[in-house]
Amino acid sequence: MSKFWSPLVRELEPYVPGEQPKDKKYIKLNTNENPYPPSPKAIEAMKQAINEDLRLYPDPNSSDLLNALARAYHLQPNQVFVGNGSDEVLAFTFATFFDPAKEVLFPDITYSFYKVYANFYGITPRLIPLDDDFKIDVAAYKGEHGGIIMPNPNAPTANVLPLSDIRKLVEQNPNQVVVIDEAYIDFGAESATSLVSEYDNLLVIHTLSKSRSLAGIRVGFAFGSPELIDGLNRTKNSFNSYTIDRVALAGAVAAIEDVDYFNETRQKVIATRERVSAELQKLGFKCTQSAANFVFVTHPEHDANLLLKQLREQGILVRYFAAPRINQYLRISIGTDEEMDLLVAALAKLVSIHST
Amino acid sequence: MSKFWSPLVRELEPYVPGEQPKDKKYIKLNTNENPYPPSPKAIEAMKQAINEDLRLYPDPNSSDLLNALARAYHLQPNQVFVGNGSDEVLAFTFATFFDPAKEVLFPDITYSFYKVYANFYGITPRLIPLDDDFKIDVAAYKGEHGGIIMPNPNAPTANVLPLSDIRKLVEQNPNQVVVIDEAYIDFGAESATSLVSEYDNLLVIHTLSKSRSLAGIRVGFAFGSPELIDGLNRTKNSFNSYTIDRVALAGAVAAIEDVDYFNETRQKVIATRERVSAELQKLGFKCTQSAANFVFVTHPEHDANLLLKQLREQGILVRYFAAPRINQYLRISIGTDEEMDLLVAALAKLVSIHST
Repeated sequence: MSKFWSPLVRELEPYVPGEQPKDKKYIKLNTNENPYPPSPKAIEAMKQAINEDLRLYPDPNSSDLLNALARAYHLQPNQVFVGNGSDEVLAFTFATFFDPAKEVLFPDITYSFYKVYANFYGITPRLIPLDDDFKIDVAAYKGEHGGIIMPNPNAPTANVLPLSDIRKLVEQNPNQVVVIDEAYIDFGAESATSLVSEYDNLLVIHTLSKSRSLAGIRVGFAFGSPELIDGLNRTKNSFNSYTIDRVALAGAVAAIEDVDYFNETRQKVIATRERVSAELQKLGFKCTQSAANFVFVTHPEHDANLLLKQLREQGILVRYFAAPRINQYLRISIGTDEEMDLLVAALAKLVSIHST
Repeated sequence: MSKFWSPLVRELEPYVPGEQPKDKKYIKLNTNENPYPPSPKAIEAMKQAINEDLRLYPDPNSSDLLNALARAYHLQPNQVFVGNGSDEVLAFTFATFFDPAKEVLFPDITYSFYKVYANFYGITPRLIPLDDDFKIDVAAYKGEHGGIIMPNPNAPTANVLPLSDIRKLVEQNPNQVVVIDEAYIDFGAESATSLVSEYDNLLVIHTLSKSRSLAGIRVGFAFGSPELIDGLNRTKNSFNSYTIDRVALAGAVAAIEDVDYFNETRQKVIATRERVSAELQKLGFKCTQSAANFVFVTHPEHDANLLLKQLREQGILVRYFAAPRINQYLRISIGTDEEMDLLVAALAKLVSIHST
């Protein structure tokens, strides 16, 4: 604690991301990265962008990327916002739509950065409990409040809400913004982007970090009505005129346009997830129904935190959250088939050793 | 105005950056970019970074870049903070060190984003007037307040404060953070980075956008005592875990390490500035004493806003601020010698036409 810190900063409880260790080569199943490389077309576009024009600022409006996203999602460019990773888009979202005088609603078990953002902007969260199967009950999200945010699929539970439930959420809260954080949507769930032109209070947030294999270049985006997008731009332009660099812009446009590669790699991830879920269940693990690029698993006889440490010793990183209700679960990102075979073999050994 | 915007966003007056036109090729002297390309070593390092590892998140702590900066500026890594352009570093600085209950002090004529940041965080600015020669009087920056920020050299006036004045500022305000925004320091002024280990309340902010010719990749940094840097990290980690992408990190490290190229290009800019200043004075322009990569000029007989428009018609962009005291001035970035010869020729014609 320093006397030079503002009252705000003294109260912050910053987010802690999954580790990016450098000490040795791990099988990295802890931060939901994609095991497949970015689109070769994106790689090529970024290489082309490495030239002497890097002396110039990027386009502050990211027009080329807005246009590419609008085309890809059948929207208008004024229904699209882009930022330096979906975390930045989320940070701007909290500032833009959530009134500190009212509570913002999100699930008790969800992306743990939401609480951090709320704290940063002085907004009080009201946590709505998931049911015993970690399902979201949309009926509970209404009444007097300042807005709603939730991931779909939810993280780290991997559960998904059908589009009909999203529609219900948006319709039963016409005076508040409903934010659906679809970071994992491309791995098997139906996107609410199809509802964006229908409702002025729906904001849908996506990222290039998961299904487009581009966590390394930091690009996220939001889809919403022009008035919501306009609000996000007001915030962004009060914070940083140029949030996305020239190389990232070039890579993002090419990645969005390479639909074949996108479909091929996400289908591979989905197939691996289904296979591995079945194998983990054979080992006695209980898995939530996942529509994401990770599984969320627990074993009735084995302590999750102990398994985490044992896997780490064998060079395999997974994620553990020391939080109520989920402290016997592990979140395991879907890697390549080879990586997942090693994971399953390691877990098979660990649970059989302990069972004997 | 939308009913969905938070009270904060309704009150914002966002910053408007200099234009990045796409309609045709201009001589672009309006956003203080460097006319010389980035270091060839930085270009090479970025090309190397375009590979399949872009599927992975970057290092959230940017350790390699902190280490490179610490080595280059003879500091420790825990005295260095990095962000997505110095604008993001400034945004975090306002949140981290300035208490909304107290006024923050900065010059009445300065980087116009400061007012926007203050507004964004609910901080009241107290503007301290420059004297008639646009000089900063450091004696006026003391008493009861919540912090100080100023560019050195100042923008858009280009005037510089000597290091002895910075020392005075820091010493006469031991209980507040003094932020020196040195975006333009490498073009002929003495940096306060040499004072960072001496004072716990001094924060010095730099950018790769000007003297390192890398506006296109968005990297800025701050030097300060470990407790100031720790505060900035708390803010950053409450906003976005991964603010700098893998390509930008690689380019930034290589650019910082290529000292020869850095010195060669900044000396070229300085030489051109000195030559052009003399030529503009021969045309009747009054120039402030510049230690930056731009000049700030006025002509006793010619309206600045009219000159701006006439230059634009001829394909030359410069910057004009419709603000009190400086609305008869133009800010002209230093381009290549060829570009500046065209600028001087255009202005020579414009001022002689009007004088006849």
